Amino acid sequence: METLLQYINIAGTFAFAISGSLTAMKKKLDPFGILILAFVTSVGGGTIRDMLIEKRTAFWLVELEYLYVIVAGTIFAILFRKKLSYLRKTIMLFDSAGLGLFTIAGVEIALQHGFSSVSCIILGTITGSFGGVIRDIFANEVPVIFRKEIYATVTVLGGICYLLLRKMGFDFILVQLIPVLMIIVLRILAVYYKWSLPLIIVNENEDPERL
Amino acid sequence: METLLQYINIAGTFAFAISGSLTAMKKKLDPFGILILAFVTSVGGGTIRDMLIEKRTAFWLVELEYLYVIVAGTIFAILFRKKLSYLRKTIMLFDSAGLGLFTIAGVEIALQHGFSSVSCIILGTITGSFGGVIRDIFANEVPVIFRKEIYATVTVLGGICYLLLRKMGFDFILVQLIPVLMIIVLRILAVYYKWSLPLIIVNENEDPERL
Amino acid sequence: METLLQYINIAGTFAFAISGSLTAMKKKLDPFGILILAFVTSVGGGTIRDMLIEKRTAFWLVELEYLYVIVAGTIFAILFRKKLSYLRKTIMLFDSAGLGLFTIAGVEIALQHGFSSVSCIILGTITGSFGGVIRDIFANEVPVIFRKEIYATVTVLGGICYLLLRKMGFDFILVQLIPVLMIIVLRILAVYYKWSLPLIIVNENEDPERL
Repeated sequence: METLLQYINIAGTFAFAISGSLTAMKKKLDPFGILILAFVTSVGGGTIRDMLIEKRTAFWLVELEYLYVIVAGTIFAILFRKKLSYLRKTIMLFDSAGLGLFTIAGVEIALQHGFSSVSCIILGTITGSFGGVIRDIFANEVPVIFRKEIYATVTVLGGICYLLLRKMGFDFILVQLIPVLMIIVLRILAVYYKWSLPLIIVNENEDPERL
Repeated sequence: METLLQYINIAGTFAFAISGSLTAMKKKLDPFGILILAFVTSVGGGTIRDMLIEKRTAFWLVELEYLYVIVAGTIFAILFRKKLSYLRKTIMLFDSAGLGLFTIAGVEIALQHGFSSVSCIILGTITGSFGGVIRDIFANEVPVIFRKEIYATVTVLGGICYLLLRKMGFDFILVQLIPVLMIIVLRILAVYYKWSLPLIIVNENEDPERL
Repeated sequence: METLLQYINIAGTFAFAISGSLTAMKKKLDPFGILILAFVTSVGGGTIRDMLIEKRTAFWLVELEYLYVIVAGTIFAILFRKKLSYLRKTIMLFDSAGLGLFTIAGVEIALQHGFSSVSCIILGTITGSFGGVIRDIFANEVPVIFRKEIYATVTVLGGICYLLLRKMGFDFILVQLIPVLMIIVLRILAVYYKWSLPLIIVNENEDPERL
């Protein structure tokens, strides 16, 4: 089981690296810029988590396998950049897997450091989604997570689910698998059915009666 | 007195949450995006301070009351978004209170970690004003603090005032209140009278004699 | 020798401060904004390095001389902003010296914390080049390092060279000087001959046969 989760984790890193690379190529960055954007997209969320918690060195400085996976993901994205537009669904699947796994990994690490439930869910959300935030800031865009696809909302729900299952004493494998699958499925449904949170409109000139 | 300061602190967090929410709504972010922007505006400065200092966990991971105040501030801003344009002065008052309190809190925490005066003032300025910097970067704008209202200048003056009063052995309540009030008053005067530092113009094509 | 390296280090900080100030003046920031941009450009890379490593306080909170050099560099840039367009080559020389020295300093600090070669090179690259990344993000632009002048590539090569020389047991002075000079020379040659990594073009509409 440990190995299955590890495979998903590597697939998530790989997928985030591809997502970062594609953004970088759209922005016409040079190959090194592509690698850096792949890197920050993959490790950004976990790095911020580690910087927020006292006594944590950024995980990728110690677990080097992530770096190799990122390099592989970047090369893959460069080589198959033509085909990747047809693979959008596959990428989104991997990206959702990464989102789910990273979120739950973040919640678990926060729990091990003794934080409260609320802090754990926030650290999980940061782990899962802030890599994409840094990617978008580096690419000089308003982070997509703030704008659509209820990206962060899904991670919060997954984090809450994880804490509930863990408290109820479920088997550890189920405790991990169910919220990860839940995040993946919800995210895919959200993209497929274009779910989004309602927009809140502010317009000082608009007619108050019409809202 | 402790409670008075705590009230101001909570009011500051509340005000920064409103300020972040209003920016988010102007950028048409979804409700979760609004909450995140409120969050980073409120806790961003203190978080960077805590990450710069060895052996500090980000304060809001431990003191959860800040999170609840931020959620309340965000809901308040969403509900009263129509009215808040009339409340601009009130918001600015709260925002200035937050700026003053956060700055002094940052200076005090830095002092407790044994840093030099210069480092304390810098950490105070970061605590007071970098929440707004992150807010503006997330909203894809050049941070307003760099451009007008002598925002950061006021915090530096407040920090210096705090260190001087502390060294002169004033009563602890006065040592805290005077610089906070000074920052609030200076900031309000700066906005009211449109004070700003002189712009330094660089234009390689312009006539050197005319400058 | 220690003093020579220290002079280069100070020159690097000075040059990065000038580089940040010039960017800030182009963006019409106010004097305090100029100082902050000079500050983050100079210390940004080393600060991120220190935040990534457990048990490191940001270096400039302890070694105050960097702050004074930054203030001096900012004042210099403001006073001589007219002349600095003629001094572009001089600035680039200092900037490259800073890049080289900061990179090697970053690699060395990482080694002392017991990280692997790959992590050391990454931390070196971050130390040398992420000050410029933060400068560009604050100025609301896509970081220049991602786009041209093989900035980051040169630091990676310098870092590898440093590790190789160190392993081969060369004299400590040579181990430090050779990679620093190598980064400086390569960077200057890259700017002079307009070296850059090949762009990878992604255009979903373009004819696949033509690529």
